[in-house]
Amino acid sequence: MNFRVHVRVVPRAGLLDPQGQAVEHALSALGFAGAKDVRVGKAIELSVEAASKHEAHAQATAMCDKLLANPVTEDFLVEVEG
Amino acid sequence: MNFRVHVRVVPRAGLLDPQGQAVEHALSALGFAGAKDVRVGKAIELSVEAASKHEAHAQATAMCDKLLANPVTEDFLVEVEG
Repeated sequence: MNFRVHVRVVPRAGLLDPQGQAVEHALSALGFAGAKDVRVGKAIELSVEAASKHEAHAQATAMCDKLLANPVTEDFLVEVEG
Repeated sequence: MNFRVHVRVVPRAGLLDPQGQAVEHALSALGFAGAKDVRVGKAIELSVEAASKHEAHAQATAMCDKLLANPVTEDFLVEVEG
């Protein structure tokens, strides 16, 4: 079966996120003063061939560990559709 | 109230995504041959001050329209926690 997987990779809490700060300042300048604690990371979508939803999740987690996320500086979250 | 909002911004379907193609080739080289149709975009997390979950969603959508996403080349999805 084919599963659509959504991965979110964001800078680990506590680490400086200059891109997030830049976005926060820009939002504030546009009048969105209520926007705080902005973090900017990567959103990765992919299709995974797997026997079950659980196996698709495990495969995507392995991809994050090996390539998609930097384990020192980033956290990731894997969601499988369906 | 304070809501944590997750925004996903990805290249619009049909548009070329060179970063996604590069990730797909890298995954294939690492042995993840089952990974297809990879799209890479931005994952943005932020806290929004709003009276309700619905208002937080509307504010975040306005932020995407004005700053976070390029309406010509990107699609976005807003999710509000809680």
